[in-house]
Amino acid sequence: MSAKWFCTICYHEHESASAPDSCPECKADGKSLLPLSDGQGDADSAKSIGKPQNLEEVRDIARKSLKGTCAVYPHCDGGDERICQREAYGKPIGLGGAGSGASFKANVTSLSALRLKTRLIGPHFQPDTGFTFCGVDLSMPIMGAPTSGLGRYTDAINELDFCRATIRGCRDAGSITWRGDTWFYTPEEHPALDALAMDGGHGIPIFKPRSQDILKKLIERAEKLNCPAVGVDLDGCGSTIMARHGQEVFRKTVADLRELVRFTSLPFIAKGIMTPDDGEACVEAGVKVVAVSNHGGRVLDHTPGVAEVLPSIVERIGGQAVVTADGGIRTGYDALKMLALGADAVLIGRDVARAAIGAGSLGVKFQMEKIEQTLKRALVMTGCADLAGITKDILVRSS
Amino acid sequence: MSAKWFCTICYHEHESASAPDSCPECKADGKSLLPLSDGQGDADSAKSIGKPQNLEEVRDIARKSLKGTCAVYPHCDGGDERICQREAYGKPIGLGGAGSGASFKANVTSLSALRLKTRLIGPHFQPDTGFTFCGVDLSMPIMGAPTSGLGRYTDAINELDFCRATIRGCRDAGSITWRGDTWFYTPEEHPALDALAMDGGHGIPIFKPRSQDILKKLIERAEKLNCPAVGVDLDGCGSTIMARHGQEVFRKTVADLRELVRFTSLPFIAKGIMTPDDGEACVEAGVKVVAVSNHGGRVLDHTPGVAEVLPSIVERIGGQAVVTADGGIRTGYDALKMLALGADAVLIGRDVARAAIGAGSLGVKFQMEKIEQTLKRALVMTGCADLAGITKDILVRSS
Amino acid sequence: MSAKWFCTICYHEHESASAPDSCPECKADGKSLLPLSDGQGDADSAKSIGKPQNLEEVRDIARKSLKGTCAVYPHCDGGDERICQREAYGKPIGLGGAGSGASFKANVTSLSALRLKTRLIGPHFQPDTGFTFCGVDLSMPIMGAPTSGLGRYTDAINELDFCRATIRGCRDAGSITWRGDTWFYTPEEHPALDALAMDGGHGIPIFKPRSQDILKKLIERAEKLNCPAVGVDLDGCGSTIMARHGQEVFRKTVADLRELVRFTSLPFIAKGIMTPDDGEACVEAGVKVVAVSNHGGRVLDHTPGVAEVLPSIVERIGGQAVVTADGGIRTGYDALKMLALGADAVLIGRDVARAAIGAGSLGVKFQMEKIEQTLKRALVMTGCADLAGITKDILVRSS
Amino acid sequence: MSAKWFCTICYHEHESASAPDSCPECKADGKSLLPLSDGQGDADSAKSIGKPQNLEEVRDIARKSLKGTCAVYPHCDGGDERICQREAYGKPIGLGGAGSGASFKANVTSLSALRLKTRLIGPHFQPDTGFTFCGVDLSMPIMGAPTSGLGRYTDAINELDFCRATIRGCRDAGSITWRGDTWFYTPEEHPALDALAMDGGHGIPIFKPRSQDILKKLIERAEKLNCPAVGVDLDGCGSTIMARHGQEVFRKTVADLRELVRFTSLPFIAKGIMTPDDGEACVEAGVKVVAVSNHGGRVLDHTPGVAEVLPSIVERIGGQAVVTADGGIRTGYDALKMLALGADAVLIGRDVARAAIGAGSLGVKFQMEKIEQTLKRALVMTGCADLAGITKDILVRSS
Repeated sequence: MSAKWFCTICYHEHESASAPDSCPECKADGKSLLPLSDGQGDADSAKSIGKPQNLEEVRDIARKSLKGTCAVYPHCDGGDERICQREAYGKPIGLGGAGSGASFKANVTSLSALRLKTRLIGPHFQPDTGFTFCGVDLSMPIMGAPTSGLGRYTDAINELDFCRATIRGCRDAGSITWRGDTWFYTPEEHPALDALAMDGGHGIPIFKPRSQDILKKLIERAEKLNCPAVGVDLDGCGSTIMARHGQEVFRKTVADLRELVRFTSLPFIAKGIMTPDDGEACVEAGVKVVAVSNHGGRVLDHTPGVAEVLPSIVERIGGQAVVTADGGIRTGYDALKMLALGADAVLIGRDVARAAIGAGSLGVKFQMEKIEQTLKRALVMTGCADLAGITKDILVRSS
Repeated sequence: MSAKWFCTICYHEHESASAPDSCPECKADGKSLLPLSDGQGDADSAKSIGKPQNLEEVRDIARKSLKGTCAVYPHCDGGDERICQREAYGKPIGLGGAGSGASFKANVTSLSALRLKTRLIGPHFQPDTGFTFCGVDLSMPIMGAPTSGLGRYTDAINELDFCRATIRGCRDAGSITWRGDTWFYTPEEHPALDALAMDGGHGIPIFKPRSQDILKKLIERAEKLNCPAVGVDLDGCGSTIMARHGQEVFRKTVADLRELVRFTSLPFIAKGIMTPDDGEACVEAGVKVVAVSNHGGRVLDHTPGVAEVLPSIVERIGGQAVVTADGGIRTGYDALKMLALGADAVLIGRDVARAAIGAGSLGVKFQMEKIEQTLKRALVMTGCADLAGITKDILVRSS
Repeated sequence: MSAKWFCTICYHEHESASAPDSCPECKADGKSLLPLSDGQGDADSAKSIGKPQNLEEVRDIARKSLKGTCAVYPHCDGGDERICQREAYGKPIGLGGAGSGASFKANVTSLSALRLKTRLIGPHFQPDTGFTFCGVDLSMPIMGAPTSGLGRYTDAINELDFCRATIRGCRDAGSITWRGDTWFYTPEEHPALDALAMDGGHGIPIFKPRSQDILKKLIERAEKLNCPAVGVDLDGCGSTIMARHGQEVFRKTVADLRELVRFTSLPFIAKGIMTPDDGEACVEAGVKVVAVSNHGGRVLDHTPGVAEVLPSIVERIGGQAVVTADGGIRTGYDALKMLALGADAVLIGRDVARAAIGAGSLGVKFQMEKIEQTLKRALVMTGCADLAGITKDILVRSS
Repeated sequence: MSAKWFCTICYHEHESASAPDSCPECKADGKSLLPLSDGQGDADSAKSIGKPQNLEEVRDIARKSLKGTCAVYPHCDGGDERICQREAYGKPIGLGGAGSGASFKANVTSLSALRLKTRLIGPHFQPDTGFTFCGVDLSMPIMGAPTSGLGRYTDAINELDFCRATIRGCRDAGSITWRGDTWFYTPEEHPALDALAMDGGHGIPIFKPRSQDILKKLIERAEKLNCPAVGVDLDGCGSTIMARHGQEVFRKTVADLRELVRFTSLPFIAKGIMTPDDGEACVEAGVKVVAVSNHGGRVLDHTPGVAEVLPSIVERIGGQAVVTADGGIRTGYDALKMLALGADAVLIGRDVARAAIGAGSLGVKFQMEKIEQTLKRALVMTGCADLAGITKDILVRSS
C-alpha cells in the first residue's frame, strides 16, 4: 500500500510504500518526513497527526518530540517548576537556563515589567514593518537566533536538517536566521555552514570564540558562501563542554576583535554583550553589530534580564553600531518593547527551535509569520505606523 | 411521562413529554430550557441539576458548559496556569487575554494593590446606591459589559439568547447592560440589536469601529429601538478576525468621532480609552461617556491595568464626560475601588457572561444582585452612606 | 466488650460498652469523647487515632473533621488556591476570608514583611512572659480570639463544647480566651455565656454590635458571671447573615460606645479598629481596650493587614488604652512582631479553633503551650529577657 | 555467588557473598557499602543503582533515602509547599527551616535579588581560586558547613559515617569541612571529634554554646587532634531539644568568648552572627573568624537573609576578623555573590549533607567539585581572574 510523504525541510512530496530513509529531493533525513495519508503514522508517534496546519499543531508535535526536555509551555518563562530548570546540579541544560535558571527568568520578567500604551485615536494605517539588516531586506526587524545542538536533544530531527529548517523557514517568512556553533561542530564538519551552503548562504553564522586561527578559517568559509554577515558570540568563552571536547574557547581582547573585523570583508557581529563598557569596546574594535544578549540565560546564572540592560547600552553606543537584542521575546508585543527600548532588531531563539523540531521549515515559517502578525497588531494598537514611529513614549513602567 | 421545563431566558414554565426545541413563550432555543422535574436530565449534563437556586449553582453549570475554555475559577485573575491563558501561540482566545494574558492580569493586580479603609464609628445607615446613567435610573452604578461571541465558545447557549439573557437579567436586577459586536455579527444580522428589539431597547449597543457608513446604519437601528445611548469600542481597530471575515475595522480620528456624535441624537460612548490624551480627544469630539477599558485585556498584551490608568484620565477629563471603568472587577469591593478612583460607574464582563451561560437571565440576575450586595456591605464597612460619600480617602495603597 | 473513653472537654475518663452519648461527668456531647483503647474507632474516622499526644496529632484529627472546609495547611495564609478561599461568589465563608480573601492574606503578608534581629551576645536568661490583662495574671500576652460558629462547620464538635474547649484549654495553658457571638446565638440562648457559666466566667465575651438594649442585657449576664471584661466587635455591623436571621446589627457612634462603657462596671473592649481615627473615637468614649483587628479578614475584603495599620494606631492612642492585635499570628515569632510593633497583647483565632475541633480543651492547651514555647525561643534569640525588653529595635524591614 | 562491594566512606572494594555488616578496611557501617555488580541490590532500594558516576546520581540516591523528609528539589529554596516546611506546628525540622521557614527562604531570596555583571572583553585567563583558611591551603574559598544529626533523619547512613564522609569528601576535593554538634552528641561520645580522630583532624569542630567547662574539654580534644581551628555556634543558645536532653546551652557574653579565645591555642570561630553589633563584640573578644549565618534558617524564624546583612557586618569588622558566610548557597554563582559582598569564604550545608547521604565521601567530593566548577565558570564570565579580582563592581541589584 503506497502512501504520500511530505518533506518538512524542502516541502517536496512523494509516494513510497514504506517509510523513506531520506527525502529523494533534498536528502533530508527520513525523520523530517511526515506521512500525508491517514493511518500511516503510529498513533503515539509525535508525527502521527500529519502535516500541521498551524503553529499550535507544530507545537503539539514538538511537545511530543521534546518530552522530558521541554514541555513547550504556553508560558516559556524559565519558572522554577518548569521541567527544563534542572541544570544547577549537573543535569543537561536542554532548553533551560544555566544554574538556577535565574538569567532565563530575568529575561522574561524584565520584559513583562514593561507596559505598552494603547493609543487609538488618529489616522488609520496598515503598519509597515520592513527592515534592512546588513544589506538584506526583511519583512520585519525580527530574525532567528543562532541556536544549535538541538539535534542532540531529540530524535525528531538531525542537526543539519535543524539548521536547514531555520534557514529556509525564516527565509520563507521574509526574514533571515543567524546560525550557531557548538561543541560537536568542528571547523571541518560544521552543520551551520553546511546548511548555509545548501541554501545560498541566506543566514548569518555566529561562531564560538575559538582561537583566532580557527575563527579566520570559519569566516573565510562564510565569505565564500556569500553570507551577508558573520560574527562571534563572546559569551561562549566560559563553555566547559567545548573545552572537554578539545575545542578551546577564549575571552577576547579589543585587539582580538579588531583583528577579526579587519580580516573579513563582511559586517562583523559581536554577540553576548551585557554592559555599556563591553559595548563600547566592540565599537572601538570596529564591530558593526552589537548583539545584546545573555545567550537565553544559558551561559551565566543570575545575570540581569536583557531588557534591563539594553537601554544603558543603547545610550552609550546607539548610532555607532547596529544594536540587536534577544532574550525572553515570545510575541510581537515583546519584540515591540525591545524596539521601543532602542534595539534596531531582535532575535527569536527557543520558539524558532521548537518550531523547527515540530515541523522543520514549515514550522519555522508558521512561527515567524505568527510573530509578524502580533507585531503588526501591537503597532496598530500603540499608534506606530512604521518602525520609525516606535519610541520610548509607548512604554509605561508599571507602578 | 410528561415533565416541566423552565425557560432561563423568559422564566416561562411549561409541560412537555420530550425535550422541547424552543420555549413556546419566547422562542428561546431549547438549550436554554431546564428540566424542573427530577431525573429529566442526564447526570453528566451541565443542566442536570435543575433550576439553580443561587449564584454558586449557576457557576457550577457554567463550569460544565465551558469545560476546556474557562474553569470558572474562584479567582478569575488571568494567571499563567489558568486554562484560558493560551493565546500567545494562536489558540483561540476564549475568555482569556491577548497574548501572554498580561493585560488581563494587570487589571486584577492593579485593583488588588489598592486597600479599603475600615471606618466603623459613626451613625448607622442603609447605603443608597441609586444611580442615573444616560437618563436611566439604576439600582447601582454597575452595568453589564458589552461582551459578545460567547455563543461560539459553548453549545449551552446561542448568541441571540446570550444577548437576551444579559439584557433581561440586568434589567431584572435594576440595572442595564451594554451589548457588543463581533466578527459574525453583520449590519443585517446583528444578535445584539435583535435581542434589544425583543426587550424594548433596554440596553446600550457598542459597535466595533467599522466604516463610518456602516456605523451610521447601526446607530440608526439603535435609535429606532429607543436605546438610551450608543457607542463604539475604539480598541476593536486591531482585530484581525474581523478583517479575515471581510468586516473591516478602522482607527478613528477626532473628526470621525465628531461626525458620529453629531449624527446621532443619543448620548455617544467611546470605549477602550487608556490614556489621558485619547480621553481628551474624545471630549474634544463631543463624546458624552468615556469608557476606560483595555477590553478585559483581550486586544493588546501588556497594557497597564485599568485601575492604574483611571486616575490620570479622570484628572484630565473628569466633569467633562461621564467616565466608566471596566477590567478585573469581580465583587462590590472591586467596584467600590474603581468608584473611589473616580469612575462614575463600572461594567462587569466575564462574570455576567458566565452567569448567562450558566442560567440565562436568571443567572445574570443572581450575579448582579450578588455584586450589589457586596457593594452595599463595602459601603457600610467603609462608612460611605451613598455614592457621593465615596472618595479617595477610603483607599490605602498597600506599603 | 467494654472500652475506655476520654472526654476532650473535661479530661474525664470512663468505661462504656458502646459509644457514649455524652460525658457522664461534664455532659459534653459524645462527639467530644475519644476511645482510648485500640480498635474502638473506625479506621476512617477522624478520631480513630485515640488521645492525641501532641499538636500535630490534634491537627491531623482537625484536618479530617474539617475536610472540604479547611485543610489545616502547614501554612495558613489565605492563598488563592487554598480550599477555604471561595467566598467571592457566595460559597460559605468557612474559615476563609471575605470576598477574594485579600484581607486574610494581607494579615499574613504584612507580618511576614517584618524580620527579626538575631541578638546573641549578652547575659544568659530564661525569658519572662508573664502579663496581666484586665486584672487577670496570664502566662503570656497571648489570648484566644473570640471565634464562634465553628460548631456549624463540622460535625465533630457542637457549639457549646467548642466554647468550653477554648475556655478550658486557654485556662489550662495559663491564659484566657475571648468568646464570640454569631447569627445563631440569641440573647436567650448564647453558647458563649452558657459555656462561661460552666467555667467560672474565665473568659471575655465579645458581642456583635446589636441594639443598645440587647447589648445591655448581654453585658449584665457577663457581669453576673464574673467575667473580667466585656466588649463589642464593631466590625460586625456589616453582617448580612445576622440581619437575615432577624438579629439586627448597627454601626455605633461615640455616644453609643460611651453609653455602654458607662453602663458596665467591667473594662470595656472595642474590637475591629483599623484606623487611628476610629481608635481615637474609642478612647474618647472611655473604651479601656482597643482591639486592632480586621476580624481575620472575614468582614471586609481588601483591607490592609493588621501589622500594617497597628503602628499608626499605637502612635495615636498608645498609653491611653490597652491595644491588642490579631490577624495572621500563627507562632510566637509572629506574636513577637506584633508586640514589637506596639501591641500590648495578641489574640490567636484560627489555630485555637482548629485545635478545639481536633481535641477540645486538650487541643487548645497544646496549641497555647506551643505558641508560648516559640515566643520564648524568639525572645532568647532576639535578646529580650522580658516583655519590657521588646522594642521596635528587634525589627528589620526586609529590603 | 560472590559479589563486589564498594565503601562510599573510604573507597575500599572487597568481595563478599552476602551483604557485609561493615567495611573490612575502615569499619564503616554496612549501610555505607554499595554493591558494584549488577543485580545485587533490590530494585526499590535507594542504593540499587550501583556506584554513582556523577552528582545527579548521588542526588537520586539521596532522594530515595530522604523520602518524606527532603525531596532533594532542583531548587532548594524553603518554599512554602516544599515537604520540608512543616515545623511551625511541631513536626520535626528535618532539613527545613524554623517555624514558617521564612529565614530559610530569606537566605535564597536575598541571594537571588543580586545579579552578576557579564564582563567578557579582556585578556583570557584560567581563574585561580586558591585560598588559605586558618593556615590550611584550599582549592577554593568554599568549605563544608557544620551540619549534624543527619544520621537520625535517614536509615541510609549513621552519624559517625556521615561525619567521616564530609571530612573525607571535602578533603578529596581540596577543601575542608567544619563539623557540628547536636543534642545526641555528648562530651564523651562525640561523632564529630571521633570522625576527625579517624582522619587526621582535617576538619574544624564547631560546638554548641554549652557551659564554659564542657566547651573547654571539647576544645582540648580538638587541639589534640590537630584541628586547624575550633569554634562555637552562638545561635545554638535557643535550642530546646538540647535542654530537653539535659545538655544545657547558654547565651554568651563578651567575657565568656574572651575566656574561650584565651583558653585555646587555635584560631577561634564565632558562628551565627547576624548583626554588626554582635560582630563587633566578637572582635572585641579576640575572635579570629566571624561566621555570618542564620544557621540555614533553622534557629529563628523570620530573620533577614544572610546576603542581606552581610555587607553591614563586613563594613563594621572587615579586616579585623576573617568573615565567612553561609545560607542559601547552592552553586558557584551564589558563592561568588557572597564573596563579592565581602565574605572571605563561604560554607555549604544542605547540599553537602545530601551528597553524604547519597554516596558518602564520594558524593561529597562530587558536590564540592561541581561547585568549584561553577565558581570558575562564573569568574571567567564576570572577568575575575582570581579572588582578589572579585569586588562589588560585579554585582547589579535588579531594578
